[in-house]
Amino acid sequence: MIDFDTLKYENGLIIAIVQDQTSKEVLMCAYMNREALEKTVETGIAHFWSRSRQKLWKKKVKRRGICKKIKEIRIDCDMDSVLLLVEQIGGACHMGYRSCFYRNLEGDVVGEKVFELKMFTEFNYIASITFAKS
Amino acid sequence: MIDFDTLKYENGLIIAIVQDQTSKEVLMCAYMNREALEKTVETGIAHFWSRSRQKLWKKKVKRRGICKKIKEIRIDCDMDSVLLLVEQIGGACHMGYRSCFYRNLEGDVVGEKVFELKMFTEFNYIASITFAKS
Repeated sequence: MIDFDTLKYENGLIIAIVQDQTSKEVLMCAYMNREALEKTVETGIAHFWSRSRQKLWKKKVKRRGICKKIKEIRIDCDMDSVLLLVEQIGGACHMGYRSCFYRNLEGDVVGEKVFELKMFTEFNYIASITFAKS
Repeated sequence: MIDFDTLKYENGLIIAIVQDQTSKEVLMCAYMNREALEKTVETGIAHFWSRSRQKLWKKKVKRRGICKKIKEIRIDCDMDSVLLLVEQIGGACHMGYRSCFYRNLEGDVVGEKVFELKMFTEFNYIASITFAKS
């Protein structure tokens, strides 16, 4: 097991890239601190660190049935980022898409929408989950 | 075309995740500034910003035949990271692996080695490229 003390945190954080283990789609990118990493390993559910809110966060499992079950964690050569291979249940993106990378450089939507957004504010939104695929 | 001024740079940088367009393997993660992004779009070859050396860098095309040809660029919902879908020629990782994420959390090597390293120092290395696959 890699010693979490040997990771190269910057301001206490490392980059966490989330990839769907089955489809290989890159779903999102966020930050983890040591606590988020430990919680992720301990629970098998991806936890992150919110820099704006200064607290741990994870997808709302209970309220919206969305989560990222960890299948494998990989470390990069520089020890400053991790790749989380997950089984994703529901959408990753707060905008309703499976992946946060749903637009190309031309601004066209190229990602798949998995739920419709009814209302959205910066930190709180109500979504009616109408999965395109179960 | 997305206006590069609208991206949310942090200290002038955004995160760039590099994914092989064909195999879908996540190859590496680095930083780009606006200049790196513009050079990438202009040349079709991935350019990054080295924070330690404070200059643009790209894989050594001439010396080692390694490069990342851009196939598509995607932007995330928060406008602070990009996903580069590339055709990778040669290895991505300075340690000789196809992907920088070649180890799992247990420390086991799970990635594919594509060239052997003869000598390695922090910023300068000589590699004899013996591709496992052409």
